[in-house]
Order: sequence, then structure tokens, then C-alpha cells
Amino acid sequence: MAGNSGDTARSVLGRALAVLGSFSDERPEQTLGMIAAATGLPSATAHRLVAELVEWGALERPARGRYRIGIRLWQLGALAPVARDLRDTALPFLQDLVAVTGQIVHLVVLDGYEALFVERLTGHAAVRVRSRVGRALPLHASGPGKVLLAHALAAFVDEVLTQGLPRLATGTITDPGRLTEALAGIRRSGFCLSRDEMTDGASSVAAPITGPSGDVVASLSVVVPSSTENLQLLVPAVRVTAAGVSRALHPRSPLGERRP
Amino acid sequence: MAGNSGDTARSVLGRALAVLGSFSDERPEQTLGMIAAATGLPSATAHRLVAELVEWGALERPARGRYRIGIRLWQLGALAPVARDLRDTALPFLQDLVAVTGQIVHLVVLDGYEALFVERLTGHAAVRVRSRVGRALPLHASGPGKVLLAHALAAFVDEVLTQGLPRLATGTITDPGRLTEALAGIRRSGFCLSRDEMTDGASSVAAPITGPSGDVVASLSVVVPSSTENLQLLVPAVRVTAAGVSRALHPRSPLGERRP
Repeated sequence: MAGNSGDTARSVLGRALAVLGSFSDERPEQTLGMIAAATGLPSATAHRLVAELVEWGALERPARGRYRIGIRLWQLGALAPVARDLRDTALPFLQDLVAVTGQIVHLVVLDGYEALFVERLTGHAAVRVRSRVGRALPLHASGPGKVLLAHALAAFVDEVLTQGLPRLATGTITDPGRLTEALAGIRRSGFCLSRDEMTDGASSVAAPITGPSGDVVASLSVVVPSSTENLQLLVPAVRVTAAGVSRALHPRSPLGERRP
Repeated sequence: MAGNSGDTARSVLGRALAVLGSFSDERPEQTLGMIAAATGLPSATAHRLVAELVEWGALERPARGRYRIGIRLWQLGALAPVARDLRDTALPFLQDLVAVTGQIVHLVVLDGYEALFVERLTGHAAVRVRSRVGRALPLHASGPGKVLLAHALAAFVDEVLTQGLPRLATGTITDPGRLTEALAGIRRSGFCLSRDEMTDGASSVAAPITGPSGDVVASLSVVVPSSTENLQLLVPAVRVTAAGVSRALHPRSPLGERRP
């Protein structure tokens, strides 16, 4: 291999993955210049990698010099367990919850130190929120995120606390002691009520989803306007939905057999 | 570069993409041996590429020696326009159609010579079908596929006819002349009725979705049991839903502005 200054540590594949990783929710469409700047790759290298990724279908070129994630990568991603198993199993239950409440319903998993939104269904009465399918948001600042945190290992929670608890909205819990108390409350009660923690004006009720081993593998929530006086009224519906998904995820469950 | 016998034609990136491309709906989880066999790569090469893909998160290793598509690839795929624009825009309309009919609703786009299923929502009365999110099926053997074919270029339709029309179920249109007539009928009427063409026992009503330019960019369908006597009764609901999605896809539409 020829020595390529400053980039010898990264393999060809590593550089191609860096190109793919430079696309994000904030940058779903990029120019070659943006890709080169984000990855630190020389323009010629970025150009060559992008051309090969386009040829294969991992990237698309909607206009000259502009690039987006391609349909083939979407199709591959649909094979991931989070989509193929969790999301497909949960979807009918989430639809029922939307039908009953008319509000936004989220399905969320832990991804590193963040809450990754795997699905979002929107009802007719839906309030405006920050979430989007595929977006990752801080764990401490949402109901489903706190539910996942409440069932994580103590060492992991300590790391999250050490990293700091930035304020996203007026109700965000930014004090480590208060967050620790809230997590204990979630473990005791089996659900989580949040007011204006992620977005002002939006409140939520969240509950955990367990996998076949009994571990919490995901959480779901209903988001309602903060003008809703009694969030408790939504708790039974959210918990029943989470229990339904948990049961369907169990391979021995009769519902589990419904999966094609 | 050292000459690597027999595989010089493929770049390192090409080989890594071949590894990813060896995962499919039929093979969502593979061993290293399966990957090597499917790609024609030497085991050592496959092992090295897989290790780097696992490290980045493109693949996951659920158990020793077994591999699946990883959450990071799913997250990247969610940035594709088919997910971020089409699917996100269509979803509330699809939910309404499920709520009204209680049946399966599909959102489908053209991908090469196939009908790619982008979304599938399931109602309580749903019949069993072959579709799955991310699965590609023959164009001629489903309602939404025929709608896409009906609005494709004549040269493209000729290619599909030349490739042959395999039978998938008792009602599949396998005669080129009959398919050409059916496509003309779809263009005239603005919808498509299908009986037992993809799966015996399942029938559908499909209609086209147009993008901002007026071109057909997708199609949607409701699938009902073939015991349903009058499919025509579903036509207005399906067409109104398709028109709603088409309007919401238009950037000047008031509904288009609802997108966050």
C-alpha cells in the first residue's frame, strides 16, 4: 500500500464507512465538499468512494454533486432485528394505541448513551415533538429514555450522570439526584410520567417492553399536550400495550406465532 | 497493491458491499461460511471484512459465528428518501385506511424490475400475505406492482414482458397480452383490482401516488380476503387515500408543511 499521509490508520473500508457515517438526520443530503470536510478525506478519495457507493446503490445522486442515502441501504437496514423483529411485532399494538388515544406513539431502544426512536405513529390530535424515526436523543430527557435508563446497569447510569444532563426544555431533569430518584420511581411503579422534558408543551406516559429473557429491550410512550391535566388516565392503556408487545416478542407466545 | 488472485476485479469496498449484499430477506442471519460462500470471498478475507463491519455497527454478532444487519445500518437506511420523505408522509394516511378497513395496507415503490414494499400496516381482519417491509416481489403479480408498471415507460414494460411472467398464485396474469390490457385498464380507470394474483385467498385494490412533478412515484393497496364479493366498494377509500398522500408530498401543499 502506498503511504497516504495522515490517513494510513484507516482502511479503505473504514474510509467508506466514514463517508456513510457523515450522513445524519441533520445532514440527509450532502455535497461532495461536505462529505470530504466531515470525513477529513481528500476530495479525490471521497469522490472515488462516493462513486462506488452510488454504483452499488448505498448512495443516490438526486442532482449533480448532491448525495443521499440510497434505497438499497434502506432495504438492508430493514433486515436489522430492531426493524424485522421488534418493530414488526410492535406495530399492530402501536396502531391500536394511536387509534384509542389519537396521539403520538413512540417505540424506543437504547443505542449507546442515547434513546433511538425506532417508530413513531401519529394520531389526529398529535402535538409537535422532536422525535423522528432513526433519530437518537438524550436518555434523561424523555419518558421512554428514562424507562430504558431505569432498567440499565448502575455503572451505565453513573456514566450517563457523569456526562451531564443538558436541559432540552423547561421540565428536563438536570439534577443527578432528582434523576436517580425518578429512575427508582419508574422501577417501583412500572411506568413513567414526564412533563415538558424534551419539548415544551409535550408530556408523555411511558412503559417498558421486555424480551423473551425478561430483560427490558425497548420502551414505548404516548405523547400528549402538556395541557392534559391527568396523565395517570393514560397509564393503563400504555402498560397494557407494552405488555402486549412483550408477550408477542416471546417465541412461545401464541401471538408470537402470528409472525410470518 | 498486492495482486490478490481471482478477486482483483473487485475493490476492497466492492468486496465489503458484497458481504452486506449477501444478507437478504431469506438470509437475515448468516454464518461466516454462508457469507464466504455467497460472496465467493476467501474465508480469511470475509472474516476480516466482517470484523470491521461489526466494529462499525453495520453488522451485529448475536452469537459466536453468527451475523445480522446492525442497528447503525438501519439508522442510516432511515435517512433514505423512500423512508424519510415518502414513508413518513404517507404513514398517517395509511393508518387511517387501516382504521377504516381493518385490513392490510401496503405502500410500494418501483425498484429495478420489482415492486419494493416500503410499508405494511396490518388491521385486525388482516389476511395472510407474502409481503414484508423491505421485500421486493414481481411487478406483474400484485395490484400495487401492476399500478407502477401501468405508469412506467413502454420500453420498460416490454423488458418486463420479455423476462417472463411467472405464476405465483392461481390468479397471476401470465399472458403478456392480458397483462398489457390490464395495464391499459389501470391507466384508464385510475385503480387496479386483483384477485389471487400474489397469494391465493388474498385480493387487493390499488391506486397510484403521484409526486410533485405529477409522475407516479409509488402505489398503495388494501388487501382483503378473496371471499370479498365486491372489491369495487373499497375503490373510493383507496383512491382518496392515494390522493391524500399525493397532495401531502407536494411541497406547496398546506399538508406538506406539516412535515417537521
